Amino acid sequence: MAEIDRLVELLAKLPGLGPRSARRAALHLLKRRESLMEPLSLALQETARRIRPCSVCGNLDTTDPCALCRDGKRESDVLCVVEEVADLWAVERSGAFKGRYHVLGGTLSALDGVGPGELRIDQLVARVASGVREVILALNVTVEGQTTAHYITDRLSGSGVMVTRLAHGVPVGGELDYLDEGTLSAAFAARRAVTAE
Amino acid sequence: MAEIDRLVELLAKLPGLGPRSARRAALHLLKRRESLMEPLSLALQETARRIRPCSVCGNLDTTDPCALCRDGKRESDVLCVVEEVADLWAVERSGAFKGRYHVLGGTLSALDGVGPGELRIDQLVARVASGVREVILALNVTVEGQTTAHYITDRLSGSGVMVTRLAHGVPVGGELDYLDEGTLSAAFAARRAVTAE
Repeated sequence: MAEIDRLVELLAKLPGLGPRSARRAALHLLKRRESLMEPLSLALQETARRIRPCSVCGNLDTTDPCALCRDGKRESDVLCVVEEVADLWAVERSGAFKGRYHVLGGTLSALDGVGPGELRIDQLVARVASGVREVILALNVTVEGQTTAHYITDRLSGSGVMVTRLAHGVPVGGELDYLDEGTLSAAFAARRAVTAE
Repeated sequence: MAEIDRLVELLAKLPGLGPRSARRAALHLLKRRESLMEPLSLALQETARRIRPCSVCGNLDTTDPCALCRDGKRESDVLCVVEEVADLWAVERSGAFKGRYHVLGGTLSALDGVGPGELRIDQLVARVASGVREVILALNVTVEGQTTAHYITDRLSGSGVMVTRLAHGVPVGGELDYLDEGTLSAAFAARRAVTAE
């Protein structure tokens, strides 16, 4: 059953699937050859063939520039800087942002040998120079994300662009009891006045 | 991005992947086009093309009969009856069994309309008639599994074959505190004498 072993091995490389769940997934596929296994094989092939990174923002799409960069209804003078395409998708799902994106492709990390040259930071600086009013840093609130945010802020200082970051605080639906100290401290520090009735 | 949406939709049908983890998996694949996405597409295609059910035992393999049924070193007069191919794999991993298998393809379930005709029970009865000494029922300890075990025991009564089932009890590494009452009761009922020192 070398074919099945090979399939299980490849499936186990997907995030969220370990060796055990990869075996379950392989069997699930084997039992649904026509309805799932063959369509999935084709979808992978088709996507691998057609999807390419957008040369403007770094998003993935079948066209270059991508649909978001070509959309005339989106504000072109506000850039939302994200680490990965997954973050872009998350922001899009929220519907909270109607400007353009810039995908860095990761974060600075001395440990993993990721310097500014490995990220799309020069491209960001160049885009900002061509008439951008605001850069929103929507980076993860991790050491790497915040280091990268600092670096970008430095690089953009003097360019006249307004650099903002997302608010930190208690997540909507979040319970204080389950929050880490960092988030709670941030939420206290950034507390807002409420109008007394 | 219809291609990505389609891929995410198909990945989300795999057990263990929900919509969110399917999106993560899709991005993971998009970032590893040559090392993972294309190999996975090929492996799916190849497996879908080559793997077929064994006409003797119901296992999945590239050959029919399967490698286990063709293996002359395995005892041919002991059959281990399992619900699914996944269970066969689990027993094989344990190394506890060196006979032949019989995969039922599910369990009897009035609710889901699965009768004896939908399972490979007639084939089991026929195999037993051609010289089998023992049938080990390695079915899940669920209502469906045990109903199926009862039905098979009935069908095989009078055939002269010895029908056994796996022992029930405390799992190795299991903690009593976390066990359900059914397992604990079974373990008490089947308690064994230990030699006093």
